[in-house]
Amino acid sequence: MSHLRLNCDLGESFGAWQKGDDAAVMPFIDQANIACGFHASDPVTMMQTVALAKQYQVSIGAHPSYPDLVGFGRRSMACSTAEIRALVTYQIGALAAVCRVHDSAVSYVKPHGALYNDMIADSEVFQAVCAAVAAYDADLPLMVMATEANDKWRALAKPYGLTLWFEGFADRAYDDNGRLRARRQAGAVYQHRADILTQAERFAQRQPIVSYQGRELSIEIDSLCVHGDNAESLATVKAIRQRLQQLTTS
Amino acid sequence: MSHLRLNCDLGESFGAWQKGDDAAVMPFIDQANIACGFHASDPVTMMQTVALAKQYQVSIGAHPSYPDLVGFGRRSMACSTAEIRALVTYQIGALAAVCRVHDSAVSYVKPHGALYNDMIADSEVFQAVCAAVAAYDADLPLMVMATEANDKWRALAKPYGLTLWFEGFADRAYDDNGRLRARRQAGAVYQHRADILTQAERFAQRQPIVSYQGRELSIEIDSLCVHGDNAESLATVKAIRQRLQQLTTS
Amino acid sequence: MSHLRLNCDLGESFGAWQKGDDAAVMPFIDQANIACGFHASDPVTMMQTVALAKQYQVSIGAHPSYPDLVGFGRRSMACSTAEIRALVTYQIGALAAVCRVHDSAVSYVKPHGALYNDMIADSEVFQAVCAAVAAYDADLPLMVMATEANDKWRALAKPYGLTLWFEGFADRAYDDNGRLRARRQAGAVYQHRADILTQAERFAQRQPIVSYQGRELSIEIDSLCVHGDNAESLATVKAIRQRLQQLTTS
Amino acid sequence: MSHLRLNCDLGESFGAWQKGDDAAVMPFIDQANIACGFHASDPVTMMQTVALAKQYQVSIGAHPSYPDLVGFGRRSMACSTAEIRALVTYQIGALAAVCRVHDSAVSYVKPHGALYNDMIADSEVFQAVCAAVAAYDADLPLMVMATEANDKWRALAKPYGLTLWFEGFADRAYDDNGRLRARRQAGAVYQHRADILTQAERFAQRQPIVSYQGRELSIEIDSLCVHGDNAESLATVKAIRQRLQQLTTS
Repeated sequence: MSHLRLNCDLGESFGAWQKGDDAAVMPFIDQANIACGFHASDPVTMMQTVALAKQYQVSIGAHPSYPDLVGFGRRSMACSTAEIRALVTYQIGALAAVCRVHDSAVSYVKPHGALYNDMIADSEVFQAVCAAVAAYDADLPLMVMATEANDKWRALAKPYGLTLWFEGFADRAYDDNGRLRARRQAGAVYQHRADILTQAERFAQRQPIVSYQGRELSIEIDSLCVHGDNAESLATVKAIRQRLQQLTTS
Repeated sequence: MSHLRLNCDLGESFGAWQKGDDAAVMPFIDQANIACGFHASDPVTMMQTVALAKQYQVSIGAHPSYPDLVGFGRRSMACSTAEIRALVTYQIGALAAVCRVHDSAVSYVKPHGALYNDMIADSEVFQAVCAAVAAYDADLPLMVMATEANDKWRALAKPYGLTLWFEGFADRAYDDNGRLRARRQAGAVYQHRADILTQAERFAQRQPIVSYQGRELSIEIDSLCVHGDNAESLATVKAIRQRLQQLTTS
Repeated sequence: MSHLRLNCDLGESFGAWQKGDDAAVMPFIDQANIACGFHASDPVTMMQTVALAKQYQVSIGAHPSYPDLVGFGRRSMACSTAEIRALVTYQIGALAAVCRVHDSAVSYVKPHGALYNDMIADSEVFQAVCAAVAAYDADLPLMVMATEANDKWRALAKPYGLTLWFEGFADRAYDDNGRLRARRQAGAVYQHRADILTQAERFAQRQPIVSYQGRELSIEIDSLCVHGDNAESLATVKAIRQRLQQLTTS
Repeated sequence: MSHLRLNCDLGESFGAWQKGDDAAVMPFIDQANIACGFHASDPVTMMQTVALAKQYQVSIGAHPSYPDLVGFGRRSMACSTAEIRALVTYQIGALAAVCRVHDSAVSYVKPHGALYNDMIADSEVFQAVCAAVAAYDADLPLMVMATEANDKWRALAKPYGLTLWFEGFADRAYDDNGRLRARRQAGAVYQHRADILTQAERFAQRQPIVSYQGRELSIEIDSLCVHGDNAESLATVKAIRQRLQQLTTS
């Protein structure tokens, strides 16, 4: 039976601006990473997103970011570790309150965008996020990018008493070093649904995936990141969901 | 024995900008209304302010505002009631998380600036704030401006199951209608410490205060708002504290 | 020959969030009211919008707003007249610089949203906007909402030496008082293209339009506000443009 | 006669938060680098700062920054070159409009904080700023940090037709590599006024200054950055001004 969860970044509208189609994708995912107002969303949007997640009994994760609305949290910022701890705490709390008024709760934390990437590039950033989550609630799992070296990150998180959840991507090629192939490079994003389903299936069955260059990579993941912002990606999510269910029941 | 608490708006620095002298006034107050990032403060400042409040065992109140940093939350905004509910929830939660990592908690809510004033001017705004606080935690008292008609506000809050705390001002003149005399008018702010202490004492002893026009006003309050942003106001806080203690022990 | 210009609010994307279909509607309008970063847009988006306007030789208007991104400038804010003067100046200048690097220029000013409405509701706001535009360049026309009392606004603007351009709406019903019927009321927005074209034609021919209640209204306008944010509205713009050209050539 | 100008970062208040004592230092400087709303200031503050600069006939420079109010523009952000060009353009324009309504003008550009430092660390950032200034007005000088390799920066700026003004610091130690000694290191900031005056005098007389490690450094500068945010720094500015005048008249 498949252990694999499907997670999706949601609640990324902002004020009058809509983004994504949360209502369409919510029924097909297990975990909603909900923006907390620093790269996207606002208090009203958070209310609506949490209500929707609750309606479909989807687990809610805080999706904190650097403070950069205009850059959608995708631009690395030279924040101090004290700043990172504080801004992660603030955002978890804001979402937790919105959950509380919906008789729900934050169940995990997955940093967003540049903060997510900087965690893997700089262990001080990683540790600052760990410290923030652990100080708030050491029982909240922290979702990070899976690599071939998951144990390295587990060791870094251990002093904080944190459980890590590792995340993989079905629609992205990995390079030989076990990292995501940069979007600006050819072949970074799979165009064919068959390729996406194959990679999802390998992740689900704990089989090696194949890098862009052709090497087998042993990357263990707990959750697969999917997208639901257009008809094509939504159809892919449904296909992944169906494939995982077949694996589970076969 | 005096029932009266002293509260002060604190944590109003923002990034590189300092405001007030929180460390100086904290030892003399009972309740710190802590800014939550919408009119002042930021995650790092909130961390520092909560730590300071905890050090002096001062009760922590969330001090939510309209989203208006450049206007310091002093400009009324035509927010919908859904927006008000959401932004109050968000701000309480952000501060609650900061408290939680300091093994502390939000103990009450006092809206800030234009939102505080709009509550008294527009019962829909009042009810939206009540709804927000009650949905989050109906055991959190809501601090509002005391008038001669406290019962009116109690009646409005009752359906939400909320306790109201009423707040008065020692350094401000009241008009015959029981409202604060507008700052732009002559005599709105008491210049002499003796006048301030007299009004504080009357509030503490549940005696009528005297309006600017000379009428006796029966305004019951639970907490007295003080300021600690300069040497003069700080000296006044100390004097008020001393006078209240004399009342208590006499 | 028709004197009527078509204007459209454009450049209302913000960072990663798209809004409207500027490229589709630009070829069919005369005047682009371009957001300046306070209710929508950002420096990069402004660069793109100005480049597009220049490509189609569309006149560029600054579209300044209250500082309220999350509310899209639609919420009235109690700004002082000094604040209004300053924020209008700032936004005109920001757009003027973007125009300058495209060898273009700001040709007029049309306030946005709540600021636009507050001008008609409060003559102090109207005068503050006049003062800002006149201090920057008294040759820049100011576009305001047309009513039956255009002369009243002309009189208010006269001391500032400003030319007013009056704007009407083809797709909105007017009440007997000559103001736009509120959106929340039945019949506020015309659903049939024939109704829209009829009202546009009457405006173009300087004939009275008919209020929702059936009264003839003499509202003179210089420019007609159109929308291009979806296929339906875009088709309507094209139909209006065609109708106006027929009037001109007949 | 001394060629040296004194420049100061001014207009760094934000809304209700005051910073620096602009009125006190303005009489003693030649060039005011005025914040444009992205790291500090707001439209009203810009109005006041420009009026003050004009009163003392101080030359006005735009002081653009990364968009980071809470971080005061001191945190490096991974902005694209298109973003840098656009945000520099926007900020110059906003200040230019404020100047225009005061019958004044922007006379040069000096980037702020992390953007200023990133220019020296990354030639793509340097060129993006050059491109922005040149596209707006190639006659506007661009003020950058002086090093021993001023010619390198002149060569980079040449294709843009820009004049560079080089800036030095009297109160900061330089390392052997000709760069400012990092603030976190011992001896980075001179504590004694005599040391500051000596370095100012050497800059003014085009003599080598002496690095922290003792090496002679040939750093040519056009303008000396001074600070006026407290009584001590203000007294130092006056002393520097007096010393430069003595050099001029002797």
